[in-house]
Formats: sequence, C-alpha cells, structure tokens
Amino acid sequence: MVDTGPRAALLAPEVETRPGFGQRLHDAAQAAGSLVCIGLDPNPERLPPHVWDPNDVTGSIVRFNSALIEATADLVCAYKPNLGFYAALGEDGIAALVATRRLIPPAIPVILDCKVGDIGETARGYARGYFDAWGFDAITVNPYLGEDSLAPFLAYADRGVFVVCKTSNPGSGDLQDLPVSERQPLYLTVADRAATWNSRYPATIGLVVGATFPDQLAEIRAHCPDLPILLPGVGAQAGDLDAALQAGLDSDGMGLVVSSSRTIIYASNGPAFAIHARQAAIDLRDAINAVRVTPHIERSARSGA
Amino acid sequence: MVDTGPRAALLAPEVETRPGFGQRLHDAAQAAGSLVCIGLDPNPERLPPHVWDPNDVTGSIVRFNSALIEATADLVCAYKPNLGFYAALGEDGIAALVATRRLIPPAIPVILDCKVGDIGETARGYARGYFDAWGFDAITVNPYLGEDSLAPFLAYADRGVFVVCKTSNPGSGDLQDLPVSERQPLYLTVADRAATWNSRYPATIGLVVGATFPDQLAEIRAHCPDLPILLPGVGAQAGDLDAALQAGLDSDGMGLVVSSSRTIIYASNGPAFAIHARQAAIDLRDAINAVRVTPHIERSARSGA
Repeated sequence: MVDTGPRAALLAPEVETRPGFGQRLHDAAQAAGSLVCIGLDPNPERLPPHVWDPNDVTGSIVRFNSALIEATADLVCAYKPNLGFYAALGEDGIAALVATRRLIPPAIPVILDCKVGDIGETARGYARGYFDAWGFDAITVNPYLGEDSLAPFLAYADRGVFVVCKTSNPGSGDLQDLPVSERQPLYLTVADRAATWNSRYPATIGLVVGATFPDQLAEIRAHCPDLPILLPGVGAQAGDLDAALQAGLDSDGMGLVVSSSRTIIYASNGPAFAIHARQAAIDLRDAINAVRVTPHIERSARSGA
Repeated sequence: MVDTGPRAALLAPEVETRPGFGQRLHDAAQAAGSLVCIGLDPNPERLPPHVWDPNDVTGSIVRFNSALIEATADLVCAYKPNLGFYAALGEDGIAALVATRRLIPPAIPVILDCKVGDIGETARGYARGYFDAWGFDAITVNPYLGEDSLAPFLAYADRGVFVVCKTSNPGSGDLQDLPVSERQPLYLTVADRAATWNSRYPATIGLVVGATFPDQLAEIRAHCPDLPILLPGVGAQAGDLDAALQAGLDSDGMGLVVSSSRTIIYASNGPAFAIHARQAAIDLRDAINAVRVTPHIERSARSGA
C-alpha cells in the first residue's frame, strides 16, 4: 500500500535499490582518484566580498558554494557541510544548506556534519529530517547517549553514519581519553562498539578521528581495519597530513575521507576564489596520493623512520 | 564602536543588563508556582487533525504550539522545543521553530533541546545561531567533545547551558555508566566537570538527568547541590515522578525543571486539545508541588521508606 498520508507528502522519494553508502563513497573516491572531502563551511566574515550580500544571505551562500562545487566536483570523494555554519545564519542559513545539498551531483556523497545524538522519537525525527527530507547521504553522530540513540540512523541501508570517536580539538581528551573498562581509553571503546554495530545494522558505519592525533588514529585503525574514517583537522602542514595518512590508510590505500575546509574554500577571497580553491584541492589530493601510492610496507617503514 | 558589519545585521538585539538565566528560571518558577516545563515537540502523526494542514506545515505547527502556549503559560517555568521534531519537517519545521520561540512571553525562559557539541569555529557558529539569531535562553549540550567545545556557549552571561549527563533511554548506560578514573561512572565525572565549569564561566550551567534513573539522580544531586537539573522522562506513573523528585529537588524544594511533552501536548487530539493540555499541566504541577511542600527531612524519610 502506498503511504499517501501527511508523512508521505513530506518525504523525498527514496531510492531503495542504489548501492550502500560505503560502496558509493568508494566509487566516488575511485572515480576522482581522490580521498579529498571539502567542508562547505560558509562564514560571512570570510566570504569573498563580491559574493556576500547581507540582504540576500541565502543567495550569497548558495552562490559561494555553487562556485566551489563547480570548480572541485572532479577532485573530491565527498562534500561535508557542517550544520553549525548554516544554523549560525538562522532560517536563511538552513535554506542555503538545503539548496546546497541539491546542487551536488548525485554521484558524490554528501555528509552532513551535525554530530547529532538524541533518543527515541526525537532521534527518529532527526533521521527523517536529515536523511529523508534533506536527502543527505551520511551524517556524523555523537555516541554519548548509547546504541539505542543511534539505531534510528543505523536502520537506513543506503546511508552512512560516522560515529564521533576522537576529535581534533585540544580538549578532546577531557572525556574521550579517560580510561574505562579494561583500562583502555573511552575513544577505543567507542571504536570497538562502532565495529560491532557495523556488523549488526544495515547502514555503513564509519568513525570520526581528528588528524591531529596520529598515534590514536593508528590505534583506532588497528581496532577497526575496515571502517571508513572521516579525518578532519588536516592543516596546512604536510607533516601532520603525512603522519595521519600513515596511521589511517587501510591496507588498500583507501578507507580515509580527508576533510579540509578553510584551507580550500578560503584559499583566496578575490574574484578568482573558486580557481584558487580548485588549486588547493588539487594540492591536497596530490599530497595524499603521493603517500597512497607508496606500498603499505614502505609506508609503515617510513612512518617508523 | 557599534558593529554595523554583516554580522550585526544578522544578530537579534542583545539585552545585556537582564538577570542571568538561573535567576530568570527561578523567577519564572516562583511566579507560576511550578517546576513544569512543557516540551513543544510537534509530530504531524499525532497533531489534532483539525490543526494539521499538509499544505501549510509551518502554519500548522505554529497554530498547535500557539494554542498550547496560550493555554499553559501561567503554569510553567519554561518551555523546551526539541530541535529534532522541527528538523524532521525540513525548512518548514525550522521556520515553525523560530516562529514558536517568538510566541513565548519574554518572562518565560525557552530551552532549545539540541544536544549540540562541536568544536572551534563551528561551536561559535552554533552559539551565534541558537542564542543570537534564534534567541533561545538556554540550550542542551553534549559533553563528549570536551570543555573547549562548550566554552563558546558558556561565555554567554545571560544564557543557560544544560550539560547532558545521564539520559533517560534504556541504553544510556552504554557509555555513561562506564567506570572511569576513581572508578566512578562517566556520568558522575561529567557532573563534577559541570560543577567546575559553573564556577569558571559566565553562563548558568545545569545538567540533564533522566527521571527514569532516580538513584543516579540522587548521586548527581549530592555531587552538585546547586546546579539546576533538567529532568526529562517523566511518564504517566506518579511513582516514577515521586522517586525522581525525592532524589532531585534541592534543599529549597527547587532546582528541577520537570519536562513533560507527550503526556501534556497530546492529552487529546480533539478540538479542545489545548484545554486538555492545560489540565494535564495542572495535574503535573500539583503532583510535583505535593512533594515540594513536604519538608526536606520528611522527603528523605519518605524516600527511604
């Protein structure tokens, strides 16, 4: 029976037959030859002045994102808008977020970075909103509320759920590094749980691990050899990037979604900002690929050098 | 110097001289003689059919919330919309959330239940959005990302920040109950940290503790005698409510924000739904006050009986 009630009217049509998120992400990375994910995080204070019109917040953001997407779509395996930057602009920002998602070619997965975590009916509401109404391919979630808080997201066979595990900020250890059962840090327990959930739920499960903690990333990769890892916190320093890649790439030179935002999208705030963004994305792609093409055994040796 | 740049245009005017959130919450509870907080969590599947118009999602939600607020404003110490129910409805839902906040009389604090947690510039974006652009008096936050992720919210002197500590769902113990340093469960370490932050940041800090875990609530109250506690998970059973009140009220019979949503807002889905909601709110207020007026020493004795 076709649901024609109020909910049906609100939901975007669901394509049930497409491959799972993990496969789509892999395909996009192979097609572009790139593990780069661009964070679409618009901040009015940093936007090119010729793009920003305070009387048209939604239009300004959409123009900015549209130019970036057009200039970089062949260079990325994913895009990742962070909800916070859009929420900061109120309703106009949310409208820009929804419009931005629609601008991105269907073959490129879009990860909404919302770090959501709530329970029961509320969690189901978020899942309907972020997956069905807004059409994102994957989201980030916060594990603090436990497995049942994530289950409504994990039930979507064709979507991805990146569990926040070890974040890139200076204070990420406040709770994440606390020793828990078996004396291992909380973040490793979270990684272990995520691996278990991956075998029990239809969605593709991944982890969020900050590039600023390569040692912890290596530990997490050892515990979860097969989970995709979303890697924010890649700065301008190639040293940090190298260490994180050595630690986090899987045995096939895949398995990382290397997210960069400001270094790419604010590479210039002049009229040619999109061309500069493209060049910054190429530079990051090539820096990553230089490590990826090194055989794993050499990577390990170099890592230890 | 007055900021007339793009950001200023986006921000609601900030009243710097009003009392802190803790004081405003206390004043509202005293004025209403009530610790009841109504969760404004609209779900199209449960809305009274005469209110729901699928062709006017925003208007339907606003009409529903408006009737509820009008019928209950003299009975509550706060309202608490949960972002998830509005995000579920996409852009139209967000528009309804913003409109709903504006409907609520300024003397009644409004807590946005968003369980937000992100870092750096993103956290500052959320703070600008939820506090400045949307004008909420308080929010709920997830502590997993550490102190620096919460600092941008804690910097607001006139706002409240409820730190998610021990949630009401069945799986809340998955991480929250893990024994950490000093062998105490993680949720108690979160409570201890929150008490420390309360002494070091301008905002009023509170905790979120589910009413379904009265023993843990008593422990948390013992660790944090002065923090306001937002108490979701109050069901229809008076027994649960009694146990939670015994455990969580402070020595003045205050200190709890008792949040109820479905029992009140869906008390009826007929034409007189708002009148039924009013009666349900009165019943909850009176059930709470019956315990509050009992002197603390008798409460403790009764609790042990």
